[in-house]
Amino acid sequence: MIEVADRVLPVSADVSDSGVLAIGGMPVTELAKEFGTPLYIYDEATLRANMRRYVNALSANYPDALPLYASKAYSDPHVVKIAAEEGMGLDVVSAGEIAVGVAAGFPLDRMYFHGNNKLPEELAYALEAGVGRIVVDNFNEIDLLNTIAGQAGKRAQILLRIGPGVEAHTHDYIKTGALDSKFGFALPIGQAEEAVARAQAAPHLDLIGLHAHIGSQIFDIEPYVDTLDLLIQFAQDMTDKYGLQMTELSPGGGWGIRYTGADDPPPIEDLAETVAVTVKDRMAALGWDLPRLVVEPGRSIVGQAGVGLYAVGSSKTIPDVRKYVAVDGGMADNIRPALYDALYTVLVGNRMHDPAEETVTIAGRYCESGDVLFKDIAMPVLNPGDLIAVPSSGAYCLAMSSNYNLVPRPAVVLVNDGDARLIRRRETLDDLIQPHLDV
Amino acid sequence: MIEVADRVLPVSADVSDSGVLAIGGMPVTELAKEFGTPLYIYDEATLRANMRRYVNALSANYPDALPLYASKAYSDPHVVKIAAEEGMGLDVVSAGEIAVGVAAGFPLDRMYFHGNNKLPEELAYALEAGVGRIVVDNFNEIDLLNTIAGQAGKRAQILLRIGPGVEAHTHDYIKTGALDSKFGFALPIGQAEEAVARAQAAPHLDLIGLHAHIGSQIFDIEPYVDTLDLLIQFAQDMTDKYGLQMTELSPGGGWGIRYTGADDPPPIEDLAETVAVTVKDRMAALGWDLPRLVVEPGRSIVGQAGVGLYAVGSSKTIPDVRKYVAVDGGMADNIRPALYDALYTVLVGNRMHDPAEETVTIAGRYCESGDVLFKDIAMPVLNPGDLIAVPSSGAYCLAMSSNYNLVPRPAVVLVNDGDARLIRRRETLDDLIQPHLDV
Repeated sequence: MIEVADRVLPVSADVSDSGVLAIGGMPVTELAKEFGTPLYIYDEATLRANMRRYVNALSANYPDALPLYASKAYSDPHVVKIAAEEGMGLDVVSAGEIAVGVAAGFPLDRMYFHGNNKLPEELAYALEAGVGRIVVDNFNEIDLLNTIAGQAGKRAQILLRIGPGVEAHTHDYIKTGALDSKFGFALPIGQAEEAVARAQAAPHLDLIGLHAHIGSQIFDIEPYVDTLDLLIQFAQDMTDKYGLQMTELSPGGGWGIRYTGADDPPPIEDLAETVAVTVKDRMAALGWDLPRLVVEPGRSIVGQAGVGLYAVGSSKTIPDVRKYVAVDGGMADNIRPALYDALYTVLVGNRMHDPAEETVTIAGRYCESGDVLFKDIAMPVLNPGDLIAVPSSGAYCLAMSSNYNLVPRPAVVLVNDGDARLIRRRETLDDLIQPHLDV
Repeated sequence: MIEVADRVLPVSADVSDSGVLAIGGMPVTELAKEFGTPLYIYDEATLRANMRRYVNALSANYPDALPLYASKAYSDPHVVKIAAEEGMGLDVVSAGEIAVGVAAGFPLDRMYFHGNNKLPEELAYALEAGVGRIVVDNFNEIDLLNTIAGQAGKRAQILLRIGPGVEAHTHDYIKTGALDSKFGFALPIGQAEEAVARAQAAPHLDLIGLHAHIGSQIFDIEPYVDTLDLLIQFAQDMTDKYGLQMTELSPGGGWGIRYTGADDPPPIEDLAETVAVTVKDRMAALGWDLPRLVVEPGRSIVGQAGVGLYAVGSSKTIPDVRKYVAVDGGMADNIRPALYDALYTVLVGNRMHDPAEETVTIAGRYCESGDVLFKDIAMPVLNPGDLIAVPSSGAYCLAMSSNYNLVPRPAVVLVNDGDARLIRRRETLDDLIQPHLDV
């Protein structure tokens, strides 16, 4: 257990002699006491370390690379501010995520606005705010953005999202890039070319680059290389036919992380170096200037940085069937087990040295049979008040969290060097009821 | 299309000669203009009609029946207030849902508090507020509630949630009642008996009844009859052994509704009458006084009353593969298609008379390939601004809604007799960012 834990926990994680897990120098027992549970703990050291791994591995191999933090994994102004400090750009997918960047003082010229159905008012807001790049997804958006930019008296710097037809091996729900996708201009059937032609002809758009995104939680480098080759070959063709000047190129994000001992993602450096070297090689062969190389990691920045913390409540033993142990959170703060059959490593944060004694299933508190977080895991005998710590919870848990059963969403703390800072307060019942107007 | 629509839409739905759908006398085109999209429209006439069907069918067949509105399907003070006016009780599963009842002025003695892991502070709040009944789920809770009631100098009126071992035919995720369940005291293996013994011995608890819940979206009456028979046989046994006085009895909720033409739920009256007559017959045979008969419908009250309304945005045709049409909502306001493979009837609210011309897939706006709402449905050729109306959206859509991609959740209107009242305002970017404390 501890061996797997070492590889999924934040970099600052430590375990005391008495068996208490600490993150950023803060024992989870103290965090639970001060901030309550469920609690999400983000480790600043891990955030910065993962960001630096991308920044350093790219810059060591490429003169003009920009890794973006894909804020849809977890959009919080404190995390986004750290991304700015580490020299990253920001991938945003809504007016809300732009507004978080603005609240964080993020340099807007390093912001890239993605999405398959950006609303007119969101595009107008992005242009008004000065978002650096719009990644245009479809023909409607070419026309819409051109119109909105014209009305605003601005020019939009755009990349096109290309559907390269590359299919990365991952869960069906998060597979993109294949031909049957709601995202992007399909390359194999000529829509990407038509998009270039129309974008080049649009008077208020500056087409400066190409983007693709081939999936999420990917462990193979090859699909990225294939994607880059397809994009570069396409760019060459478009340069010849339509005078495209490709000054930016992005093979997207989606790099995987370790959730359990069964996951073995290659290091971030492997991806960053391979991508950088591939583009450099291809450009040298073409005799082209190097475009800005953009990569868009979200989960692989923030996933490992976050630890979910729950308190054990009731339990129920059904002999010869199953033992259920319930915690004070569940599918409303982490829907990934129910939605994707996602697996996690599960630790007892206050009893890290205790050996496993039985197989249990950790259920949530929500009134639904599907609210089961972790099935058939080896645990010591758990008692009410024990703290269940769930590493690899930094991405797509809070981002997708709901108020199911009208339960307030968890508090979030950022820990570093023995200090814990509340960065998102626990919701209150008033927060939940207030938007429901007076009866 | 219209024929199916007639059977899934709210009772007040109408279509104008020009093909505009109206709910509660309000054309959806006007609602979209005034309140924006995505919008959830609740029809007061349908809410009251469905509530009255339960109330009337039960009271016609049983002297002391109380249908509860299971507010987890959609907890809103306006809906809850209507339930109070119609003489219903309220099924709540959290402090938040209790607080909504309090905000609505709901009679607290008609409130039943359910849940597999009620928190100590929630139990204390429920007792303090005067919630009428606690439906105790597990042994931990017997002890916990007894302690809390004792400390508060109160007696808690409790029902026990019994796991009868009945398994209703429905989706795996919402199947309950089977032996392998996180809910309740398993009857077949003696845990229910042990629970009665312990509850009877607890000085601050008054055990007054038994409850079971066998699943959700159920179309068969037989499992309810089987459940009642098991509960009554068990009650008889417990009366003999432990002096149980069963003055309340609940076979739960879970009655199904029609989402598409493939669904054919028997009318509410069938369930209500069968349940009432079954209990009356069995009690007569036993020579017992009739207990209060409690049933707990949620979806079958509010599901049909709600219509989701989206505006069409971008679209994408992939020849020989699929045509995607994107709307301005998606998995964050309705996760049921992604989570349960749920199907819906899909209408074009501003063009109800237009014939289907092609097969399309309606995708949401969220940055995830899994954000596909309705696959391969027959539609007229859709244009940006067309209004997609989704009947049967009143239950478990907004209840499970998130701020994924940091998108504000929809506004909600209650319509009736040509009037539309905003009952939940659209969230703002400030709402979303404010809990993230200042950077």
